[in-house]
Formats: sequence, structure tokens, C-alpha cells
Amino acid sequence: MAPAQELPPETEAEPLGDAADKSRVTVVGSGNWGSVAAKLIASNTLRLPSFHDEVRMWVFEEILPSGEKLTDVINSTNENVKYLPGIKLGNNVVADPDLENAVKDANMLVFVTPHQFMEGICKRLVGKVKEGMEAISLIKGMEVKMEGPCMISSLISEQLGINCCVLMGANIANEIAVEKFSEATVGYRENRDIAEKWVQLFSTSYFMVSPVQDVEGVELCGTLKNVVAIAAGFVDGLEMGNNTKAAIMRIGLREMKAFSKLLFPSVKDTTFFESCGVADLITTCLGGRNRKVAEAFAKNGGKRSFDELEAEMLQGQKLQGVSTARELYEVLSHRGWLELFPLFATVHEISTGRLPPSAIVEYNR
Amino acid sequence: MAPAQELPPETEAEPLGDAADKSRVTVVGSGNWGSVAAKLIASNTLRLPSFHDEVRMWVFEEILPSGEKLTDVINSTNENVKYLPGIKLGNNVVADPDLENAVKDANMLVFVTPHQFMEGICKRLVGKVKEGMEAISLIKGMEVKMEGPCMISSLISEQLGINCCVLMGANIANEIAVEKFSEATVGYRENRDIAEKWVQLFSTSYFMVSPVQDVEGVELCGTLKNVVAIAAGFVDGLEMGNNTKAAIMRIGLREMKAFSKLLFPSVKDTTFFESCGVADLITTCLGGRNRKVAEAFAKNGGKRSFDELEAEMLQGQKLQGVSTARELYEVLSHRGWLELFPLFATVHEISTGRLPPSAIVEYNR
Repeated sequence: MAPAQELPPETEAEPLGDAADKSRVTVVGSGNWGSVAAKLIASNTLRLPSFHDEVRMWVFEEILPSGEKLTDVINSTNENVKYLPGIKLGNNVVADPDLENAVKDANMLVFVTPHQFMEGICKRLVGKVKEGMEAISLIKGMEVKMEGPCMISSLISEQLGINCCVLMGANIANEIAVEKFSEATVGYRENRDIAEKWVQLFSTSYFMVSPVQDVEGVELCGTLKNVVAIAAGFVDGLEMGNNTKAAIMRIGLREMKAFSKLLFPSVKDTTFFESCGVADLITTCLGGRNRKVAEAFAKNGGKRSFDELEAEMLQGQKLQGVSTARELYEVLSHRGWLELFPLFATVHEISTGRLPPSAIVEYNR
Repeated sequence: MAPAQELPPETEAEPLGDAADKSRVTVVGSGNWGSVAAKLIASNTLRLPSFHDEVRMWVFEEILPSGEKLTDVINSTNENVKYLPGIKLGNNVVADPDLENAVKDANMLVFVTPHQFMEGICKRLVGKVKEGMEAISLIKGMEVKMEGPCMISSLISEQLGINCCVLMGANIANEIAVEKFSEATVGYRENRDIAEKWVQLFSTSYFMVSPVQDVEGVELCGTLKNVVAIAAGFVDGLEMGNNTKAAIMRIGLREMKAFSKLLFPSVKDTTFFESCGVADLITTCLGGRNRKVAEAFAKNGGKRSFDELEAEMLQGQKLQGVSTARELYEVLSHRGWLELFPLFATVHEISTGRLPPSAIVEYNR
């Protein structure tokens, strides 16, 4: 609490930016995108009176080749030298290797880790978050299980008993890091005020954030677009031109929308016009590793497997699009929806070698 | 009429493909896209019993360097050697240099000429078209006048007193000519049966056509996308990356939708998910001459005018995007809508030198 001051009565009720009323933000994750998120947020907490200046960032501790700890280097140089070299995060970003400590004073948590870590992180945080905590997930690529997709936002909400929004969009971290113009979408469930608060926390002159009341739609876009990017990569590999590629992207967008709405009738059409929808799809189908490896796959006439090409081209990273396509295929065939989603189905059938790459443009409907 | 035949009573009422009941199609125009349209249609009139095999194509007569008439060469070689060399149109396509003769027996007219010729063509056809004639316009790029856009489909309807649909989409003529997979959208006003007939007439295994009840939305897409392509070209020239480009394309799509709906409240959101909307926008922003010249404009820091770059890069062709942006700007400023359409307004302000190309990503809203 700030010390009591003698103030004229008429100003006594004014918000004084009292320390106890200010929101404290912790970013859980410190990879490429996590570091950029911390930079965006840190520029805003300095500027906005309703937030504490300090942004805490949980860092999975690593020992650098120099023998130093990554957190020490981030805190002394103000740079994530491993995952976002050359970019100053803001000197109000504090790296913390201790997850529980990093979140204990926070009332706003930003989750931005690889999705496979989230279950473990949630387990560690059960009972350790403040009452009234608000969360947002920037994690793309949840799994699509037979019984429905395993949404990261739901995992967080259910495990920690807190509300969770999502932020998705056409967000290539390195481009936003150098302050190139971009947009993003915040998906929220009911509380518009909370959505506006997240929008405030992330928005800058070069990063425009819009809220939409549709968590599931926004989050599904971030996963399903990778399957469409595989299709776009096939078209590139077959050298079919921009016309065909645009058609395939459009069919992909339509299937993303139809699939999301079948699973969650609350999903809105308009969400697919947002940055998380059409813009992220465009970015992913123009660049991105799903597109790139799929292009190589088609160029090789499907004779070299995705596993082989991934190993060669991606230094151990795995393609999300291929596994999402497999998961989707299981859902579609289990529910009898295969004919409704010819593009999704065909991507899987091509990537497993059952159909040739040229099948991506064969729709006799 | 076919001669009366002795038929068992139960088959008498069956459609016999009687010559008088069959639809006769004439394509008015024979440029690059017109020739491809004739090829698509001719493959279908042969196959479908409800159409006469012959497809008449009105050709603006030219004398080729060989001294031969273009129509004679088309009719003897079955190729439009000037505008679509190397592609067989189908030997049921008949080139006709006489406009009135070409349309006199038709009951379905396909208009596909440069848009500036349409007023003159309509004048020549007044009173010369059959009763019950149906028309479709494939012409993109009508003018946007202060009192509203001058839709080509309305011009045709009003001048000739006939119903007119439109067909738009991500359609690079040369790619469809070699049968690369593509899509298109038919916009119709009320009569779904007519729309289905046009869909039948154009659809092939590599050209998928869908009907939507929204003539204005479909037709406006074909014009407004050129303005967005100018914006995308600026981003390319500034080398801002795919992320920024995707954001600009999305904002452009949003302004296309909002502008169309302000002018015509009947315009549907879903139209912008069709080939005429998002797919045509993608194609135009990836390739296309509007994008290309705008890229050169931005690379030169706006120091060389569009007129100069057009003259140098396009061999006398004019960019539709620049003039459409000017027309749009007039409408927006006249109606007090400039602030609602920052991207449209900024494109015009950059292309006239009032703002630098970098302004394309400056939206402090």
C-alpha cells in the first residue's frame, strides 16, 4: 500500500495507481515468440498506469556454451541471446528460472510454451495461482482427439480453475521483434473487459490487436491452418501457380470454418476474417515450414517420406501440419465426415502415400 | 421442330433434346479470358444435351501480320492465335466478326470484353436480343462513381432489358487454359435455376463454379481487390515480409466487405469467403500487374510516378487499381467515410505522392 497522503477530498476517490490495484504480468515461456511477447508487454506496462512496470518471464533454465546461465544473461544484457538475439526486451523484463516464484505475485499469466509442455506446467501450478487470476494462451497447435480437440485454453481453465483467453494471428515472431506491422486476435469467452485489458497489454503502433468473443474459433484457426499449409506446399511443389494455390487456400479456409462450427456451434463466421483466420492462413501458406517441407515432398513425387524430409530440412523439429492432418482424419472418419472435408482428408492421404501429390486438386464434387 | 414420331405415350413427354428447346450460347469478346471462357463453355455444350453444340464467339476483327483475318484463322485453326496461342478452343467454337449476327440466335450471352467497350456494345445490341435472353458478365473493374458504382451487370440489364448474372474468381486465364485447377463464383439476383445453368455451362473437372445470390458483392470484389493489390505491392517494395503483407491483405478484405455492404445492404459476408473474394484477392496480391507496379513504386520511394512506371512496365496497359483507388477516394471523401476506410484512402494518398509508401502500415486507430 502507498503511504496515506493528505489530499483534497474531491481527488481522494480518484484512481491513484495504487500499487495494490495494479496488475502484475508474468510470461510463462521464453522462446522466440515468448520473448517477443514479453517485449510487447513490457513496452506497455511502462506506459500504462494500471500495470506494474515489471514483467516477469519464466525461463526454462539452460547453461549457455559460455558456461553462464541463460537467465543471468537475459537479466544482465536485457536480451534473450539464445532465442531472440539482438533484440532488447526492455529493462523491466525479469527472467526467472523458478516457475512457482515467477507466478506467485502475478494476476495475469501469459502462456507461450511449446504445447506439449503445457500439461506438466499446469500440474505444477495447481493451487499456486492467485484468486481472480486471468490467463491468456498464445500457444498454437493443440491436438485434435477423437472425442474433440484438446484446447490449450480449456486445459488451463480446467486445471487451474481460471478464465483463459487466447491470442492468435499472423505472427512471425522475428518480424514483430523488429517492429514490422502486424495484427493479432484475442479470443475471449464472456468478459469483454478482460479482453480489452489483454488488447491494451499487447497493442502497439505496429501490433494491432482486436478482440472477438470466440475462444474456440480463434484457437482452432491456429491449429487447422497448418493442414492447409501442407496442401499449399503440395501445390507449390507441383508448380501449379498462384491461381490454384489461392483456390486451395480458399477451400482450406472453408473447411477450417466448417469443421470448427461442427465441433462448436458457437464459433462465428466472422472470426475467420480476423487476423487469426485469413491473415494467419496467408502467412503460413506463403512462408512457414509446413509449406516448405510439403513442397519438397511433392517435388519428390511423394517418394521420400515426410519423416525423412523433416529430419533433413528441420534439424529435429517436427511438422505440426502432418500430425494434425492425421488426427483430423481420425476424427473425420470416426464421425463419418470424410466426404465433407475433402481437402483435409486428401492432405492426410497424400502425406501417408495413399494418394499422389497431384490428388490435392482432384475434387469431383 | 423435330419431325413428329410415333412414340409410346409414356415417353412422349420426355425431353427429347429437341433443337428448339436447346440453349444457344454466344460469347461476346475474344481476348485472353474470353477465349478461355469459350473453351470451357464449348467443352460443356458438346457434353450437355440442353445446349446446342455450337458456341458463337464475337471477335473484334483484326488483320494479322500475315494479312489474314483473325476470325478466319480462328475458324480454320481452332485457335485464337493472337490472344490465346497454342490452345485449341474446341471445333464447335465459331468466330464471328459481326456482333449483331453473332447474337441473333443466342439465348445466353457471355460478356467478356474490356469494360470500357461495354457501353458501346450495349448500344449496338438494343432491340437486337431475343426475348427471355439471359446474360452473364465476366468483366472485372467497373468504375466507382460518386453516385455509386457503375456495375457492368446493371448496365447490361438496364440497356438491354435482360437479366444479368456475373462470374468472378481467382481466374488467371492462361492457367485455366492449360487446365490447372481453379474456382469461380457465379453471382445471381433471384433466379437460382438460371444460376445453376451458368454453373453447368462453365464447370469442368478443373474449374469449379459455385453460385451465390449476391450480384453486387461478387462484382464489387472483382474491382476492389485491385486497390488492395496496390497496397500489397507497396509492402513488397518496402520488403516488410509475409506477416505484414498478410495483415494488409486482411485489412483490405475487411474494407472491401464494409464498403460493399455500405453501398448495398444486401451484400452478404459469406460472399467474401468465395473464390471471387478471398481467393481472387490472394491471387491478385501474389501476382498481377497492380501489385508489380506498386512494388516498383515503393522501391523507388514514390519518386517515380505510377504513370511513368506503367508506361515502362506495361506496354501501354493501364493499372485499374490506381484509377479505382482515385474513384473510391472521391466517394469516401464525398460521403464522409474516409476514416472508415484507412487502407483505401492511404493507397490513393500514397499513389498521388501525398504520403510516402511507408504510410501503408501506419494505422493509429
